[in-house]
Amino acid sequence: MSEKKWVYLFNEVEEAEKYTGSWDGVRGLLGGKGANLAEMTRIGVPVPPFFTVTTEACNAFLAAGSKFPAGMWEQMLDGLKAVETAAEKKFGDPTNPLLVSCRSGAKMSMPGMMDTVLNIGLNDETAKGMVKLTENERFVYDSYRRLISMFGSVVLGIKDEAFEKVLDAKKKERGTKADTDLTTEDLKDLVEKFKVVVKAEKGFDFPQDPIDQMRLATEAVFSSWNGKRAVDYRRAADIPDDLGTAVNIVTMVFGNTGWESGTGVAFTRDPSTGEKMLYGEYLLNAQGEDVVAGIRNTEKIVKMGETLPEAYEQFLDITKKLELHYKNMQDMEFTIENRRLWMLQTRDGKRTAKAAVKIAVDMVNEGLISKEEAIKRVSPANVDTLLHPQFMGNTKDEAKKSGKMFATGVNASPGAAVGQIYFDADTAERMAKEEKQKVIMVRPFTKPDDVHGMLAAEGILTSEGGATSHAAVVARQFGVPCIVGASMMHIDLDKRELESEGVIVKEGDWISLDGGTGEAFLGKLDLGAPSLEEQTDLMTLLNWADEICAKPGTRTAPEGWPTTGLQVWANADYPKDAQRARAYGAKGIGLCRTEHMFFEQTRLPTVQRMILAETSEERVKALDELLPFQRSDFEGLFEAMDGYPVIIRLIDPPLHEFLPSEEVLLEEVITMRVKGETKGLKEKEDMLESVKTMHESNPMMGLRGVRLSIVMPEIVEMQVRAIFEAAANMTKKGIVVKPEVMIPLTGHINELLHIQPRLIEIAKTVMAEKKVEFTYKFGTMIEIPRAAVTAGEIASVAEFFSFGTNDLTQMTFGYSRDDAERNFLVTYVEKGILPKNPFQTIDVDGVGRLMKVAVKDGRETRPSLEVGICGEHGGDPASIEFCHTIGNNYVSCSPFRVPVARLAAAQAALKYAPKK
Amino acid sequence: MSEKKWVYLFNEVEEAEKYTGSWDGVRGLLGGKGANLAEMTRIGVPVPPFFTVTTEACNAFLAAGSKFPAGMWEQMLDGLKAVETAAEKKFGDPTNPLLVSCRSGAKMSMPGMMDTVLNIGLNDETAKGMVKLTENERFVYDSYRRLISMFGSVVLGIKDEAFEKVLDAKKKERGTKADTDLTTEDLKDLVEKFKVVVKAEKGFDFPQDPIDQMRLATEAVFSSWNGKRAVDYRRAADIPDDLGTAVNIVTMVFGNTGWESGTGVAFTRDPSTGEKMLYGEYLLNAQGEDVVAGIRNTEKIVKMGETLPEAYEQFLDITKKLELHYKNMQDMEFTIENRRLWMLQTRDGKRTAKAAVKIAVDMVNEGLISKEEAIKRVSPANVDTLLHPQFMGNTKDEAKKSGKMFATGVNASPGAAVGQIYFDADTAERMAKEEKQKVIMVRPFTKPDDVHGMLAAEGILTSEGGATSHAAVVARQFGVPCIVGASMMHIDLDKRELESEGVIVKEGDWISLDGGTGEAFLGKLDLGAPSLEEQTDLMTLLNWADEICAKPGTRTAPEGWPTTGLQVWANADYPKDAQRARAYGAKGIGLCRTEHMFFEQTRLPTVQRMILAETSEERVKALDELLPFQRSDFEGLFEAMDGYPVIIRLIDPPLHEFLPSEEVLLEEVITMRVKGETKGLKEKEDMLESVKTMHESNPMMGLRGVRLSIVMPEIVEMQVRAIFEAAANMTKKGIVVKPEVMIPLTGHINELLHIQPRLIEIAKTVMAEKKVEFTYKFGTMIEIPRAAVTAGEIASVAEFFSFGTNDLTQMTFGYSRDDAERNFLVTYVEKGILPKNPFQTIDVDGVGRLMKVAVKDGRETRPSLEVGICGEHGGDPASIEFCHTIGNNYVSCSPFRVPVARLAAAQAALKYAPKK
Repeated sequence: MSEKKWVYLFNEVEEAEKYTGSWDGVRGLLGGKGANLAEMTRIGVPVPPFFTVTTEACNAFLAAGSKFPAGMWEQMLDGLKAVETAAEKKFGDPTNPLLVSCRSGAKMSMPGMMDTVLNIGLNDETAKGMVKLTENERFVYDSYRRLISMFGSVVLGIKDEAFEKVLDAKKKERGTKADTDLTTEDLKDLVEKFKVVVKAEKGFDFPQDPIDQMRLATEAVFSSWNGKRAVDYRRAADIPDDLGTAVNIVTMVFGNTGWESGTGVAFTRDPSTGEKMLYGEYLLNAQGEDVVAGIRNTEKIVKMGETLPEAYEQFLDITKKLELHYKNMQDMEFTIENRRLWMLQTRDGKRTAKAAVKIAVDMVNEGLISKEEAIKRVSPANVDTLLHPQFMGNTKDEAKKSGKMFATGVNASPGAAVGQIYFDADTAERMAKEEKQKVIMVRPFTKPDDVHGMLAAEGILTSEGGATSHAAVVARQFGVPCIVGASMMHIDLDKRELESEGVIVKEGDWISLDGGTGEAFLGKLDLGAPSLEEQTDLMTLLNWADEICAKPGTRTAPEGWPTTGLQVWANADYPKDAQRARAYGAKGIGLCRTEHMFFEQTRLPTVQRMILAETSEERVKALDELLPFQRSDFEGLFEAMDGYPVIIRLIDPPLHEFLPSEEVLLEEVITMRVKGETKGLKEKEDMLESVKTMHESNPMMGLRGVRLSIVMPEIVEMQVRAIFEAAANMTKKGIVVKPEVMIPLTGHINELLHIQPRLIEIAKTVMAEKKVEFTYKFGTMIEIPRAAVTAGEIASVAEFFSFGTNDLTQMTFGYSRDDAERNFLVTYVEKGILPKNPFQTIDVDGVGRLMKVAVKDGRETRPSLEVGICGEHGGDPASIEFCHTIGNNYVSCSPFRVPVARLAAAQAALKYAPKK
Repeated sequence: MSEKKWVYLFNEVEEAEKYTGSWDGVRGLLGGKGANLAEMTRIGVPVPPFFTVTTEACNAFLAAGSKFPAGMWEQMLDGLKAVETAAEKKFGDPTNPLLVSCRSGAKMSMPGMMDTVLNIGLNDETAKGMVKLTENERFVYDSYRRLISMFGSVVLGIKDEAFEKVLDAKKKERGTKADTDLTTEDLKDLVEKFKVVVKAEKGFDFPQDPIDQMRLATEAVFSSWNGKRAVDYRRAADIPDDLGTAVNIVTMVFGNTGWESGTGVAFTRDPSTGEKMLYGEYLLNAQGEDVVAGIRNTEKIVKMGETLPEAYEQFLDITKKLELHYKNMQDMEFTIENRRLWMLQTRDGKRTAKAAVKIAVDMVNEGLISKEEAIKRVSPANVDTLLHPQFMGNTKDEAKKSGKMFATGVNASPGAAVGQIYFDADTAERMAKEEKQKVIMVRPFTKPDDVHGMLAAEGILTSEGGATSHAAVVARQFGVPCIVGASMMHIDLDKRELESEGVIVKEGDWISLDGGTGEAFLGKLDLGAPSLEEQTDLMTLLNWADEICAKPGTRTAPEGWPTTGLQVWANADYPKDAQRARAYGAKGIGLCRTEHMFFEQTRLPTVQRMILAETSEERVKALDELLPFQRSDFEGLFEAMDGYPVIIRLIDPPLHEFLPSEEVLLEEVITMRVKGETKGLKEKEDMLESVKTMHESNPMMGLRGVRLSIVMPEIVEMQVRAIFEAAANMTKKGIVVKPEVMIPLTGHINELLHIQPRLIEIAKTVMAEKKVEFTYKFGTMIEIPRAAVTAGEIASVAEFFSFGTNDLTQMTFGYSRDDAERNFLVTYVEKGILPKNPFQTIDVDGVGRLMKVAVKDGRETRPSLEVGICGEHGGDPASIEFCHTIGNNYVSCSPFRVPVARLAAAQAALKYAPKK
């Protein structure tokens, strides 16, 4: 019987693969770093000899209460021997000492979260040997003192300050501030003093035996898996706790042994643009940390061709080999020790959104990866970044030139915003909601009380706080562009103005801010959506995404359900929105809100006359005046969406939304009464009376949607006439129209049975009048929990469902959205009571369960039932994935989110693709 | 092969029973009337010979497009022969004519909804023969002209007016208004003139052939099953359409052939009191309709012993026999023709609530029926009636004596009410809600706009309208006592007063009204709940109900679920409510609302100080003042419910409910500002600011319940301490306490995980402080749809569920209750969009489906989960039945509804009892 294998040598990756069955398994067993080092070794890339202690060993160690599992240590010692042989050095041998690093490496990259100890193997004796070998005494004792302090803090748990105090004293003594100014003698002295610290803190000497060093370091790395830093990171990054970390014992190589040595980092492609060219930098006679620290100026990697042509050529070959091997852009670290090239790391390189898209598309064109793989490589957030509203062209540059930039701060939440400034949350909210202004909220700092104003604002600007301040956290949480800590600003809340660099900005003035760069400007800068057409790589990628989704057989589904992936439709109220939606790739309009036109200032008096009408006749007369406007909007929509379905939702909001606010009227009336003014008082009083009559305690759950249509059918009758007149007119022009009339807020099948037939009657009448025929559908929103629960019945009348997940979430949770976000929702998310804001990502267990039931029951009644979603969740990747799994036909989102949704839909299709 | 049997003779009930397999089947086949006539014949009760054409024949006739099924007519003719033989008369024979009636009779009684034709067989010839036999020419020709007009309208479809015009002309000619003033000659003339009407309207003569008459009448009765009247009635009474009606051809007997003939109706027990005594009336020499019409004064049935002793004795025997046979109080019709007694009908008699209870209990004691049967015999509405608040003792009589009755009207909705009058809905609602007044709304008539006022009122009084007016319908719908059409009242809406019989009543004055009798009184009459103890029969019946529910094995249920029936608990906020609940038979408190005390005027300033506190310390200080009051209330509750569980709900409403209304404050502040008053302005402004900050768009879905406890835990911490201190104190006194702490508005398991442990900590601390141990539970309301959907998770923390069906209904439907009832709910119920008001009876398909899922998922996690309901539905019989079927442990309702619920629970248990 063979012993459990805890340790894998640099040349044993195939055994690991045999044991785990897959490359993913190898990464799980050896960690990402260890697996890649072994893989490089396997394909003939020069890697310093090493061995890896498995994650299984780590888990066994932790489970046993910090005890190495049986056999592990012996296997490590065997591994060490193999490494000595390969490196032709000997651990602890003063004449030819082997130094090693002890590095953590989990399956997932957890940068900086766990511990590493370098230069293991140094002691008083080997140090002397190293000096002989390197002829660089300063370097050796610098390494030695670093080992002692690193080992002291990481392995022995001595506080950093204990060593820092000694170091600071030494620097003070030398009258210097930089470590680099210390002399070799200073460093030798520090080594001795650090040893004293260890003895004083722990009661024993710094371990001189390299074997002890290795054992203790290994224990420390294992233990760091359960350190607070690492646990917190895993929570945040959603990494399971049971992965464990591997330990890599790697031969140290040195780039600072002379001018034929060096070290560098490089990417196989430009991580910023995605350009196919080697991108990186290096330094001769230097260590890895010198490149990062920027003590000396680094050289561009191509320069290496001149200084170390042999090593450079070899490196070039290796980078090509690695990219070809991993089929992904690689981020590599290397060291050249005396003209000999060593690869110390390779991994898939981080990249900007732009680069992510370009590299994915290029690699497909180069035949490296499939289109499916390309789709998986780009994140929806990448796409979002590329299409985020931004300041157009060189707007910002010009603004800077003309001195309009008045403040800069921490770039806390990305995005560009333009608006009028207000200095408190209430005013900001009121101006945004009631006056329909674009608002930027400016505060010294924000508090939970301010959230309602922040949510109503286009952007947020504070003079205090950092990247983790309340304003920053909330803004990122809700996607509002935000700059914090613009400390040159002085805000005078009483005067309602701010002063910055001598400029005064008053409440109501326009400013523009770029949350991605932290720059604030005076006035309105041109804000625009980047054109998709100009981003040809993205266009290509999204077209591939569409191809994937359009393939039948993409989804396994019950008989009659869609087997293609999700389509992406858009929510658009105006023809111009529809045009943008189409340009962004929408395959239909999932939601047109028909009431928008009622809110326009010129129409409002007519709308109010309609609402306050005392007879049906008066009401119809006012509606007749509104009809041509609605019809003309619908004509524009049908024209823009030629050939695609257009879902038009009948009027939804309660009527009092179209009347002046009760509070304002009340204030006016009382004031007039007290002052004894009579002119116009009667009219105001009458209006106040009407508004009071219409007042509802909970308007969200009040007289609106289909309820309103049943009580007052004239409005929807006009709307259906307008829809079908528009559709008929466009049909005559040769446009292919596919109108779908959506009835909102249905909760009971009888509501549809009551209203739908008479609307269909109108549709038929119009078609007869116009002598035109076209297909159409009548369907409903599923946004009331009861509608979801009784969807089986409702589907006998409704030809399509569209989940209104905003309201469905409100009612399933019993959260009034505006109130909730301000009053407790932020607290809930902060305290982890809710894992996510359910208004951003569908709550799968609650709201999602209702949706799932609704689709299933609905399709049992009507197998051809068209199912979509038109709530804000329609543009959220996690929610899109959920919609794919429950069998939606499409998701509908704002035009700007369409590209994101197309990618997310394809990714969901790939993730859940039937196994072949 | 024998032909399908469509016709059953009077002596063929056993064949019908064999064919259908049950008495219920016989009633289905022959209809209620036909079955009872046949059954009477079978047990030897004299019934005029007859035969019944089955409901199957009716259905076949209707299905075939109004064609008799093959063989049916021939069987009718055979039946007729048998009837002739038995009656010793011959159909159409002028010397000894048989006359028959053709009567409809469905399984369910549908009084007056379908057609009947009497005196079939009369024609010019047989009329003459009848004159000879009866020596009563006037009677014969009166019967004949009635046959022609009845046949003309029912069978031939001639409008009644055609005959009425002729009749009216005749009466005018005679200068009389009553039919009875017409002479024999007049009637003979009418017969001729009616024949002319038939000929003129239809183009053919009135059919002289009795066989034709019978055939046509049978067709007409069949067809009347699908008449509008009948269909509408079936819809309303929930009777299936496919039952069909039978046709009974019954030998006519006549009670008006002389002074040894007569007719009468009787009940085997007093239908008003339930007393065991023959109760009824009769008339000699009269027809059935004369008894009802009240043309002559009827005699009490006992008198018949003197005038027709033989027939009376026979009748007495028959009544006893029938009651013994049917084991129920019978309502009978009989006719005596020349001393010969004929029973024409028997059926279970309608009775008052009081009689229903007494008869059921008496019959058990007499050994006639089982306790289970007694339970089934009494309706929950009966119990409700007996316990409805009513004017105590002889209060009303004294009020009448002292001239306080100022108006009478139509008794539109039963119940007694006392309140101050207001003349418009807004004021009525405001006075009721804000001023907490008892209000009676007085209007000339009501409109849908007034519903909010009606709902807020104790009672409604109108001067116009009848039993089906808006006021009457809505009042009955919502159970508000109501008198309509009190036309002696003159209401002056400008003066805000009413005048009636010389008395002036002003707005704000107290009145009392009895909706059950239609009487209105000045002032406050003593209103009280009838004592249950005094109603011994009801007590007996309800104890039987409890016995039934307490039996294990009453419900078939999954492992671990309750197998007894439902328990009935009560909602009680104060000790006195708990005492009443216990007196009414409650087995626990299902809901104590802990916030009531906060609303008391003397406490409110402390509560407001607590709410407006700027630090946790200030808040705790105010709460410390409130604790003793809560504790003392809880002590009273525990004492009253010694040995029974008491569920106490932690604070639920949003805090702004405890502050003054924004509107009132705004008005005060603006007025002070405009007038330039400064004293106290700042305080008002501050309060207004706080109220504004707390304002929520949809408070129903806002910061309340557990959400409030998470944001501001101090209040519930105080409440839990008060609960456990009270429980500990009572335990020391020897009371057995079973406190259950209920957390409201849970929507996510994490809410409970966040708050429950720290509350349990407090509970344990108090028990340790007081050195007392008792068992307790922590659980939650299920009132948020998401809680129902994720009940499986929630049950891992909650030890009990209580369905808050008010809120659950609000959120599942998305109806804000106050707004909805006023704005559209009444319309919805009127138009049949909702079959019932879902706030009164659980919506089984929507809300009910969620409840069912919650119980099932909850018990899967925690088999011992205690499940109840504490919404208003807990007192609604249909909802109670539903709660039984889904596996609730108990229902909890207002103390007044407890007796109703006890009966309903037992009825549900019997209805769904496992088959033995």
